[in-house]
Amino acid sequence: MDRLDIPPDVVIRRLPLYARSLRYLLDEGIHSVSSQELGERINVTAAQIRKDLSYFGEFGKQGIGYDVEKLLNHIERILGLTHRWPVVLVGVGYLGQAIARYDGFNNQGLQIVGLFDNDPAKIGQAVGSHPILDYSRLQEVVREHQVRLAIIAVPATHAQSVADMLIEAGVRAILNYAPIILQTPDDVWVRYIDPVAVLHSMTYYLARESGEIS
Amino acid sequence: MDRLDIPPDVVIRRLPLYARSLRYLLDEGIHSVSSQELGERINVTAAQIRKDLSYFGEFGKQGIGYDVEKLLNHIERILGLTHRWPVVLVGVGYLGQAIARYDGFNNQGLQIVGLFDNDPAKIGQAVGSHPILDYSRLQEVVREHQVRLAIIAVPATHAQSVADMLIEAGVRAILNYAPIILQTPDDVWVRYIDPVAVLHSMTYYLARESGEIS
Repeated sequence: MDRLDIPPDVVIRRLPLYARSLRYLLDEGIHSVSSQELGERINVTAAQIRKDLSYFGEFGKQGIGYDVEKLLNHIERILGLTHRWPVVLVGVGYLGQAIARYDGFNNQGLQIVGLFDNDPAKIGQAVGSHPILDYSRLQEVVREHQVRLAIIAVPATHAQSVADMLIEAGVRAILNYAPIILQTPDDVWVRYIDPVAVLHSMTYYLARESGEIS
Repeated sequence: MDRLDIPPDVVIRRLPLYARSLRYLLDEGIHSVSSQELGERINVTAAQIRKDLSYFGEFGKQGIGYDVEKLLNHIERILGLTHRWPVVLVGVGYLGQAIARYDGFNNQGLQIVGLFDNDPAKIGQAVGSHPILDYSRLQEVVREHQVRLAIIAVPATHAQSVADMLIEAGVRAILNYAPIILQTPDDVWVRYIDPVAVLHSMTYYLARESGEIS
């Protein structure tokens, strides 16, 4: 494969899973892993792993496998995780609180620098170590910390206007939990987390297995 | 295209988004939509929508577009959403609570029939209208309600053993929020929701745009 090929997005989406598995391996004191073993942990074939990684260079040695720490460092560098990215989270309902308390957001290259809500009863309260700030300060904080990454956890009716505010202030990548597709400029990345849609994509298969639908 | 083709999983994953957009259109009182207009709402091309739907039959008329309600009903039937699927949720931390309170889980073809935790302080409490049950009753409830769908929101260290219990009792599709890849039999569907991995797949692009990495 030509190393100059642009890796498809589906490959980029798998890299964080490789990184996480490699981190677990390191925690377990395992310093060398074959593509076969790594694949079994992630439910990906060894061939797929080798093909994915080939976009970024030569890793591992035939018959020896990958040096776990080296490969992890390399993938983290590819993903831009050699420094922490400031992140703002908008919407501190039950979901926003769960996100803010999740340790994974405050290590692994991410750092929440602001939680925002428009509910006066919440503003000034804290979630863990993060104070909840007034939504009116959103753009100020985004600009001050040069925030490029944001998480939207507001109701669907507010998500588009929040996205517009974020993008105007400089945000270039949004993780959207609101059950609505955002309209954004072409140079803004948006990913969605939508548990109901995910469940519905599985009921499709279950209905067929149970013979309800042919 | 041959209608007997098996639709790829990526098409199945888009169907719930089409259904949601059609529901919003109905709420807005819109009863007819072109593939162009529908596509703009979902950030999918009109051609993609037509191709996706062609796996399931003939919809819409040239120059007239789709009857919103008919198409919605059809997609819901395809997704097996003509009845409610009982769902169990294991792990009632902050995330599990947020999920249990989310309206989307208790309409649109899904119904939570049990929340489970192993924390004695939580058992007997309720989240909204759902009592938190003792984890030891998990398999009993799964069998009683013939539950096929489950959500795992426990820490990574417990997720595999929870999955094993669920599958043994009859669960055939799992939505896993724990940051770990589950090992499951081939006839079990597993989907993952992993916000950190999603954010990391965007830092990849941000790092390149900012010129940090070439």
